[in-house]
Amino acid sequence: MSNIYSMILCGGSGTRLWPLSRENFPKQFLTLHGERTLLQNTALRMLNTVPLEYLRLISGAKWHDLVTAQLGAIFGNGNLPEHLITEEPCARGTAPAILLAVEELLQYGAKADDVVIVAPSDAFIRDNRIFTEALKVSVRAARDGFIATLGIAPTRPDTGFGYILQGKAYGGGYYEAERFVEKPDLKTAQEYLRAGGYYWNGGIFIFTPESLYRELEHADQELYALAMRKNLRGIFADIKNISFDVAVMEKAERVAVVPLVNSGWSDVGSWDALHDDVLEHDEENNVAVGDALVMGCGNCFVHSAGGKLAVLYGVNDLVVVDSPDAVFITRRGKSQEVRRVVKMLKDCGRNDNV
Amino acid sequence: MSNIYSMILCGGSGTRLWPLSRENFPKQFLTLHGERTLLQNTALRMLNTVPLEYLRLISGAKWHDLVTAQLGAIFGNGNLPEHLITEEPCARGTAPAILLAVEELLQYGAKADDVVIVAPSDAFIRDNRIFTEALKVSVRAARDGFIATLGIAPTRPDTGFGYILQGKAYGGGYYEAERFVEKPDLKTAQEYLRAGGYYWNGGIFIFTPESLYRELEHADQELYALAMRKNLRGIFADIKNISFDVAVMEKAERVAVVPLVNSGWSDVGSWDALHDDVLEHDEENNVAVGDALVMGCGNCFVHSAGGKLAVLYGVNDLVVVDSPDAVFITRRGKSQEVRRVVKMLKDCGRNDNV
Repeated sequence: MSNIYSMILCGGSGTRLWPLSRENFPKQFLTLHGERTLLQNTALRMLNTVPLEYLRLISGAKWHDLVTAQLGAIFGNGNLPEHLITEEPCARGTAPAILLAVEELLQYGAKADDVVIVAPSDAFIRDNRIFTEALKVSVRAARDGFIATLGIAPTRPDTGFGYILQGKAYGGGYYEAERFVEKPDLKTAQEYLRAGGYYWNGGIFIFTPESLYRELEHADQELYALAMRKNLRGIFADIKNISFDVAVMEKAERVAVVPLVNSGWSDVGSWDALHDDVLEHDEENNVAVGDALVMGCGNCFVHSAGGKLAVLYGVNDLVVVDSPDAVFITRRGKSQEVRRVVKMLKDCGRNDNV
Repeated sequence: MSNIYSMILCGGSGTRLWPLSRENFPKQFLTLHGERTLLQNTALRMLNTVPLEYLRLISGAKWHDLVTAQLGAIFGNGNLPEHLITEEPCARGTAPAILLAVEELLQYGAKADDVVIVAPSDAFIRDNRIFTEALKVSVRAARDGFIATLGIAPTRPDTGFGYILQGKAYGGGYYEAERFVEKPDLKTAQEYLRAGGYYWNGGIFIFTPESLYRELEHADQELYALAMRKNLRGIFADIKNISFDVAVMEKAERVAVVPLVNSGWSDVGSWDALHDDVLEHDEENNVAVGDALVMGCGNCFVHSAGGKLAVLYGVNDLVVVDSPDAVFITRRGKSQEVRRVVKMLKDCGRNDNV
């Protein structure tokens, strides 16, 4: 039986959880529930499927210290795999990053028929057992020659995700991925939910290097030609910026989707998502994290990470986040618009607060 | 012509502007508008009527350092009057405090027909000229043998104040104070506004020691007897706790009210009052103080005094106050209920935050 590697994508940056996530401290490194960061929970979750020595991170030089510190804290620094981190020379999107990591994995000794699981480092999954079961099915699909992806059963008509339409059953618990669709508008998303058979694309891919190159050859000949030169690192800055979805998944011929149902998956893409998907509510649907008190409030989220007491009194439908240098207050349902705040702060030259 | 002294009542404590006002740092010492504290502005305002050497503070030992530091900062420490502060041995309400201060003023050399202006240290007045003119009328009334009080022309049916009903004109711009009424309910307050002739009692009293003792003799014989012993300081702890309104004003026979109209007076009794009465609004009726930004907000008040950036995005009708150890968020119109928060914090043993 071939080996299984897990590659965690950890190069992303973003400020969707501003003022806690920052350009120099993105979401995957935050502790948003329980004791561990999203990255730490992702790494531990993968150990249900692969041994520690087959764990890999794809990341940027910028995050090297954070990654090794956070993984060292849970695994012990001496236990980290020798080739733990594949460092992207620069940001070129997920397709070049994954191709580089696969190339170096093969140089390291992996076989063309080994299985590679690619997963983001910044998602939340409540039920690791369901996730691990779905990965087992995905590994079977990968060994059968498919590029597999987990299709997350949608719980609402979210317009923040791409969707995958499930086609015919291939047997073994996986299905043809009939179509990948870009983020829809609300009406379309509502139709998808009504119609059924549509899943959220959570960016989790499972394949063998063999299948990957076979599909890449016709999906993106330019990238394929570069990959065949076996020196992606040397030319990385010259590669186009392109996502794995666009370069490979949307055009690949043998793509399987494995439904991930009732796993409690969340991309934690906003403070609202953290409230709605991840954290425990009181009877009035309030969530209070850190040194925070709510009195006579309903449907409020408050996260106090700035070392001070936060008190909400007699308010409804608010998001309140206190960080060491900024406190942010918005309405529930509007927290995904935080990018406008971040943009405004940059426009004002307040880069210290971003 | 007799002299005029100004006595500023500065012994109060309170947490109505929590989390900025604290049990150990009451409102009069806060900078809530412009560059100076309410106490500093009050002292400067009184200098339009009395010279600095006739300025007095009635305060507690607890506030001695704050008072001398804040007045020293505006007048120069070397210029502060020798008998600047009359220290209350303990808190016994405004009547014993004023009687003690008057007794010591007379011992210091004031005459029984000098005029004493008593005013709180924690009110805001926008138009000092109108205030000073009203004081001039009050001083005339005091010299004519009345205990005078300023009647603040009400701008809304506020249930947070006692009211004074104006009676017949005595000439010279002042009127009989026909009746003092306790804080009314909303319906009664609305009737007062409709009826006209009712003023808010702002706790500003103008009298000569002579008139004061004359009125006290029949208004409160117990207090009068104690006052006649000329040793209030020695027995202060044994005096009953009673306000000047109840002990003197409500029962006195020769009381004059001087209307204070369009002066922009505010007791700054809540964050809402600070928003509504004192500070400048933007076009959407927002007020942002300190390092604070509002984007797409309406009718919001934000005061950032905690050294960090406060950002309000897409919210309405909020009060947000950031202090070094606590951030408080409530709805506009509810800020006077902050005492419930303070009580809850005490009940939780969180005295550091109160």
